[in-house]
Amino acid sequence: MNEQLLLQGKQAREAARFLATASTALKDQALKAMAAGLRAEEKAILEANALDMEAGRAMGLTPALLDRLQLTPARIEEMAAGVESVAALPDPIGDVVKMWRRPNGLEVGRMRVPLGVVGIIYESRPNVTADAASLCLKTGNAIILRGGEEAINSNRAIAATISRAATACGLPAGAIQFVDSEDRQVAMDLMRMSDYLDVLIPRGGKGLKQAVQAHATVPVIMTGMGNCHTYVDEFADLDMALTITINAKTQRPSVCNATETLLVHEKVAKDFLPVVCAELVARGVELRGCERTRAIVPGMAAATEEDWETEYLDLILAIRVVDSLEQAMEHIHRYGTMHSEAIITRDYRNARRFLAGVDAACVYVNASTRFTDGFQFGFGAEMGISTQKLHARGPMGLEELTSTKFIVFGDGHIRQ
Amino acid sequence: MNEQLLLQGKQAREAARFLATASTALKDQALKAMAAGLRAEEKAILEANALDMEAGRAMGLTPALLDRLQLTPARIEEMAAGVESVAALPDPIGDVVKMWRRPNGLEVGRMRVPLGVVGIIYESRPNVTADAASLCLKTGNAIILRGGEEAINSNRAIAATISRAATACGLPAGAIQFVDSEDRQVAMDLMRMSDYLDVLIPRGGKGLKQAVQAHATVPVIMTGMGNCHTYVDEFADLDMALTITINAKTQRPSVCNATETLLVHEKVAKDFLPVVCAELVARGVELRGCERTRAIVPGMAAATEEDWETEYLDLILAIRVVDSLEQAMEHIHRYGTMHSEAIITRDYRNARRFLAGVDAACVYVNASTRFTDGFQFGFGAEMGISTQKLHARGPMGLEELTSTKFIVFGDGHIRQ
Repeated sequence: MNEQLLLQGKQAREAARFLATASTALKDQALKAMAAGLRAEEKAILEANALDMEAGRAMGLTPALLDRLQLTPARIEEMAAGVESVAALPDPIGDVVKMWRRPNGLEVGRMRVPLGVVGIIYESRPNVTADAASLCLKTGNAIILRGGEEAINSNRAIAATISRAATACGLPAGAIQFVDSEDRQVAMDLMRMSDYLDVLIPRGGKGLKQAVQAHATVPVIMTGMGNCHTYVDEFADLDMALTITINAKTQRPSVCNATETLLVHEKVAKDFLPVVCAELVARGVELRGCERTRAIVPGMAAATEEDWETEYLDLILAIRVVDSLEQAMEHIHRYGTMHSEAIITRDYRNARRFLAGVDAACVYVNASTRFTDGFQFGFGAEMGISTQKLHARGPMGLEELTSTKFIVFGDGHIRQ
Repeated sequence: MNEQLLLQGKQAREAARFLATASTALKDQALKAMAAGLRAEEKAILEANALDMEAGRAMGLTPALLDRLQLTPARIEEMAAGVESVAALPDPIGDVVKMWRRPNGLEVGRMRVPLGVVGIIYESRPNVTADAASLCLKTGNAIILRGGEEAINSNRAIAATISRAATACGLPAGAIQFVDSEDRQVAMDLMRMSDYLDVLIPRGGKGLKQAVQAHATVPVIMTGMGNCHTYVDEFADLDMALTITINAKTQRPSVCNATETLLVHEKVAKDFLPVVCAELVARGVELRGCERTRAIVPGMAAATEEDWETEYLDLILAIRVVDSLEQAMEHIHRYGTMHSEAIITRDYRNARRFLAGVDAACVYVNASTRFTDGFQFGFGAEMGISTQKLHARGPMGLEELTSTKFIVFGDGHIRQ
């Protein structure tokens, strides 16, 4: 176990004790100071980011990855505004979610409390450093941040800035900590630091998630893999289906809630597929279809088993014609990642069957899968999208960064 | 990976799909049939239990362990009645916990759904087989049961009985499954069966929990370790403190919510300790005290560092005199297992400080720690007491065996 990391863990644990009972006013003051710090340190952060961009170009990162990595004055302002918006959210800590009286007069309640120490391992976008730290601080959690090596200079500069600002307001230095190491062994150590971490949230690609699943002993919230489907039912409004399909595929193809496979009921396939395929191709989408799809719209590549399994994160769409709602649900069960799934239908019963039968974090009727997002759901923030069932499922806001404790008021009560 | 176990995992996964949308009526019918089955198979279950008791005696199990292992007609009736009481509870599945409308008209709700497949590794008491299976069935989860080797004959007989009864009602055979192996490697395999288990709940001693923490790749809900404290404040009603201390220590010393250490404010130590110690000794409790305790009540052994750390689960109590509420809280933070902690006080402010500052699943004012229990809290059932912060904390009832999914109703909504 890395000694520096162990020390950070201990300091985070101590800081978490302080944060657990810190007042909302103090936490919000620190958040505002962090936002001000980001604006004041814009130059230093941009300089650090320039080092990462240079190294990224030398490493041959794709333009898409370089774009994710790049900071600009506008992006730093956005980051600062994001931290301020977290300050403006209601503080969930101390909320008594529910309280009831037992027949013996004992009063039992559930009070929202912080999780304690949150670890986050993330890749690429440096704004996650500020986002995650502010959400954790608001919910009274200490945070240990371990960003991607390609963004280490940017992340270090951002973490130093916000940590300094928080400390200046009287928060303990352990509250926001940055793991300043590119050593993968240190990331592995972080996954196994059960004594000091209450939860680990990995945000990144398949490799990271597999490493976490294989090695973590800390409780984990898995996020983000999304092989999402849009199913056009036999009773769909085809104009609506067209609009939604285009939106779900092309509005932002690189994100986890974009649709990757279109399923079309055979009864509407002949009417719908030529139109939707033309519109998608016109928008630069590469299509890969099943036999029946290709019989209706010739010219596209054949979809393979691998296509059904793939989260493209790109302007590529797999298309399959299905016999029935059941077959569509079976396809989703087999290939989906339980992220976001949509049915387009005017039929009441089919909508209900899809809603009940599809096992996913978010199930949609007549809407784009792209809505799976903390802000779109009205949480005012997002810590990632959980694709597991334990603790948090779907977009995670502030509440998902909390636990509860039972508070029990008696009057000399003893157990009989 | 054990092949038989893998097959059970696959069958459980398939059964879980069926159970997720099974009607409340069908599930309740199966539960009632399971209860009837337990009553009808009383003789076979008692015979199987006799084999375990014989082996247990030969192995030299303690009388306490033998008592936990033993089944009687009365205990089988209790088990059957327990299953029936689960049938009588409201079904949480399908509850829409919350639903709201976004400014764009999109309606977003959270619906309670099963976790999927629950694995449980448990020790000793065979009634857990029926309890756990009935709670999982009620919540639409498939269950894979892996009991202790000392109870394997009893568990096998109970599992076969209830599984047969459920299947006869039309539930899939994979819904309730028993791992019929004493091989520890199979238990390890179960902990790593991430593709087929949604959660693993270990119920047993320290060894089991350490094995789970070290080896599990499946999400885990840790249960039960309880090093609980009762703190008698300087402003305590000493008569109440006496009654509660005796109850918390002696009403059932072998369970995780029994108090293991008594903390007494120095200002009341001279008045309180002689009385409480005499009463405890009269009830057969062995006392181990700090220096100051022993100066007031001579004759007891000195408490060591190990005593503060130990969950005795026995008629032994460690006692420490503290300078202040802060010192009591510091002691609890250092040695407690975040299970159940109590303050006895008449002081409003100290009660509030203790409630806010103590980080535990259940924090009590003027009541016995023995109330930490699903039935006592009014859940009508209990799947164990979680001592972790993720997903479930404290006594787990039916709701803790569920997840949620977002259901989203649109009218052609697309993301801008």
